[in-house]
Amino acid sequence: MSLVKKGCVLWFTGLSGAGKSTLSSRVAERLRAAGCAVELLDGDEVRTHLCKGLGFSKEDRDTNVRRIGFVARLLARNGVIAITAAISPYRAIRDEQRELAERDGAGFCEVFMECPVEVLAERDVKGLYKKALAGEIDNFTGVSDPYEPPQHPDVAVRSDREPIEAGLDRVIACLVEREYLAPELLAALGGANPDAAGAD
Amino acid sequence: MSLVKKGCVLWFTGLSGAGKSTLSSRVAERLRAAGCAVELLDGDEVRTHLCKGLGFSKEDRDTNVRRIGFVARLLARNGVIAITAAISPYRAIRDEQRELAERDGAGFCEVFMECPVEVLAERDVKGLYKKALAGEIDNFTGVSDPYEPPQHPDVAVRSDREPIEAGLDRVIACLVEREYLAPELLAALGGANPDAAGAD
Repeated sequence: MSLVKKGCVLWFTGLSGAGKSTLSSRVAERLRAAGCAVELLDGDEVRTHLCKGLGFSKEDRDTNVRRIGFVARLLARNGVIAITAAISPYRAIRDEQRELAERDGAGFCEVFMECPVEVLAERDVKGLYKKALAGEIDNFTGVSDPYEPPQHPDVAVRSDREPIEAGLDRVIACLVEREYLAPELLAALGGANPDAAGAD
Repeated sequence: MSLVKKGCVLWFTGLSGAGKSTLSSRVAERLRAAGCAVELLDGDEVRTHLCKGLGFSKEDRDTNVRRIGFVARLLARNGVIAITAAISPYRAIRDEQRELAERDGAGFCEVFMECPVEVLAERDVKGLYKKALAGEIDNFTGVSDPYEPPQHPDVAVRSDREPIEAGLDRVIACLVEREYLAPELLAALGGANPDAAGAD
């Protein structure tokens, strides 16, 4: 019997560098190791195949996020844990994606990767945040372009304050609590704390 | 137990008006009625979400076909019968899609909807074929833009010569013969001829 009780869209949101790719790939890896059907819609293949030709205007960003959401939804309604890791700056579009997924009978879980811009600027080896803060880059999300944080994320992770393992356990506990994943998964994983599944 | 033994991409190709949408939606309907996980990547939702902004240049057409193939592959490798119904005029791109699907451990089945241009022109209520034949439309596939028919399609349907039910049965028999679908499906469907599964 599959440990996935109900396919869902696991939607990461947050600024560039906040840890979306890192945490989402750790979640994917862990669930895959436990035998769950997982797809991670991040990385070069997705950018090449889904997002080519789109720019940084509000309209293009919305199209991009909706396109990723559409594909995630198709997977989720077929029993897959579909993980997205786009910045997805606009609250209304994320909320719309939740509604569409749920209308399709799939689950939805929003993970907010939170990190202050000052910390991101310090960490950023390419120096893009510093350039954006100096007014040299237009449409840089969180600096010269809007980012609307979730008001009620299903999971919030302060990537500058807590170890990645804590976020990982919390995301998986949330998927179990929502009954997207079977509770047996926690035992199968070993690493996660089974008690966390009951916490709200 | 699911009747889908192995997810696959069921790839329809053929000229506009040749019956791709009609037959593919009949196949989807029949498989869904038998309880199979099916997604049909055709229609307005796909055009809006996946293909928006793409034109009719060779490059844009290739991007479009590859994008649909990418999504179909994601579904197929998760146990879904993913049906595509784009014109997909270029043989090399279709062959590439087969290779990519198989590399992902999914099946692939190419269905060629064949119909002579003269018949399509007669049938065409919008008169687009006649305009294209008169030299009034550029980039019209099969008239003023290339269409490369499959050399070895898995199923070929002459939509001007045979009833749609014949094509439908043949497509399903092919999916069973390739062991993408369990043979029990034929009994479940009733309509299809079980003997057809053994034919080559």
